Amino acid sequence: MLSKAWQGQDSQLCVGLDPDPDRLPASLRGRPDALFAFCRAIVDRTADLACAFKPQIAYFSAARAEDQLEALIAHIHANHPGLPVILDAKRGDIGSTAERYAKEAFERYQADAVTLSPYMGRDSIEPYLRYPGRGAILLCRTSNPGGSDLQALDVGGEKLYERVARLAADAWNTGGELGLVVGATFPAELARVRELAPTLPLLVPGIGAQGGDVDATVAAGTDTDGYGMIISSSRAILYASGGDDFAERAADVARATRDEIRAASARRRTAKADARG
Amino acid sequence: MLSKAWQGQDSQLCVGLDPDPDRLPASLRGRPDALFAFCRAIVDRTADLACAFKPQIAYFSAARAEDQLEALIAHIHANHPGLPVILDAKRGDIGSTAERYAKEAFERYQADAVTLSPYMGRDSIEPYLRYPGRGAILLCRTSNPGGSDLQALDVGGEKLYERVARLAADAWNTGGELGLVVGATFPAELARVRELAPTLPLLVPGIGAQGGDVDATVAAGTDTDGYGMIISSSRAILYASGGDDFAERAADVARATRDEIRAASARRRTAKADARG
Repeated sequence: MLSKAWQGQDSQLCVGLDPDPDRLPASLRGRPDALFAFCRAIVDRTADLACAFKPQIAYFSAARAEDQLEALIAHIHANHPGLPVILDAKRGDIGSTAERYAKEAFERYQADAVTLSPYMGRDSIEPYLRYPGRGAILLCRTSNPGGSDLQALDVGGEKLYERVARLAADAWNTGGELGLVVGATFPAELARVRELAPTLPLLVPGIGAQGGDVDATVAAGTDTDGYGMIISSSRAILYASGGDDFAERAADVARATRDEIRAASARRRTAKADARG
Repeated sequence: MLSKAWQGQDSQLCVGLDPDPDRLPASLRGRPDALFAFCRAIVDRTADLACAFKPQIAYFSAARAEDQLEALIAHIHANHPGLPVILDAKRGDIGSTAERYAKEAFERYQADAVTLSPYMGRDSIEPYLRYPGRGAILLCRTSNPGGSDLQALDVGGEKLYERVARLAADAWNTGGELGLVVGATFPAELARVRELAPTLPLLVPGIGAQGGDVDATVAAGTDTDGYGMIISSSRAILYASGGDDFAERAADVARATRDEIRAASARRRTAKADARG
């Protein structure tokens, strides 16, 4: 599904849906379905530019708006079939509790993939892998300052995030449905993860508002098919305008970002062809 | 709040509220408020035996029953004031997303504490510490088989879970409101965590259905005040009977477990006194 979206849309841009009630346009504030209406408008204007959508569940949970998240994902599936929905939930638990979280993500919300924390180990991932065709994307190297506190620790000749990448690429990846979250702010580490996990989809937040460099990201994370990344931008797209033109301006930023990723990919192909001679 | 509950109730038993729709008594199944009604009956029968309640949010989310979780926590606060509610959610995210999760736990659900994953580091914990009087309990050493995959890795002379314990005891614990999750199935490691974090409350799942030994747990995890643990049991209590006497049987098991913990604490005190004198 993701490969088709990459190639069919020629896009590696993922639009992150983090609807902050305090940043919605005035015309939507106070509406009982404000989060849904805001995200739906963004989705409909950016669907031809994106390879995936990534709703962040915390924004809906904090607002008692689970029903709006359900409606949003149903809207995406009905109106933009073929575009995967990644539920950004970063769940991490075991046994029957993990089964409940998998049910929440895949049955209740009908997400195509969900983000997970690897801290509790293999049996915290397995319940998600029992859903054929659904993906589980593990936190590996995150782009926040505290990301180094544990992830950059040396665990015997490699760093913790490298161990997570190796486990996800091999021992844990029984169904071939795993991916990894790797921030755009550390291109050298993104390149290392790509080396350790040559075929895994990489969900890459941190461009746009967080300042990651698109050229460096594309050079570091592209796979042998010329795609391989779900490069996520949220705030820079969602809040491009605070007025009633928010969805048009969001599409402008999304298009510019998609094009920037495309151009970086083209430069990378040219550089590779030159190197081959 | 927790110290008062430990001493006031002379109990370190935490009743875990993981309401599995498939295991409810037949008389409750099919009721729209089944999860709430089940948990409320358990809560009201076990409140005099427990130092805390720990609802597991996944069971409510998978069932589209967030409103029942809200009602349950409100019921506990209204009818059993002084007993802390730990929302078992194992959240882990950063920045504005972490703020949303903190809002979900502390404002929407009015939990007194929430469980978190440490994988994303210090800035993924901080938003929760901005709520005075509310706790954040970090996954440290979990009792599942895969718990060793990352947590037992050597990170330069100590294991990853030991590093997490040290960080939680010191650098990360700016407000004195952190705790740690340490499974009962590894008493030697529980003792090590207690050594590294002498004053932190330890949430200890894994007795009861998961087979952890109460004597070994109490010997390993007790603090200098003679308490210090929130020893959690869920399934053994909740599903003690599948019939209409479920709440009475739950109270029987809860009482027996509390008494077993008390007796182990008494034996530990005697052993300590003998050793001194």
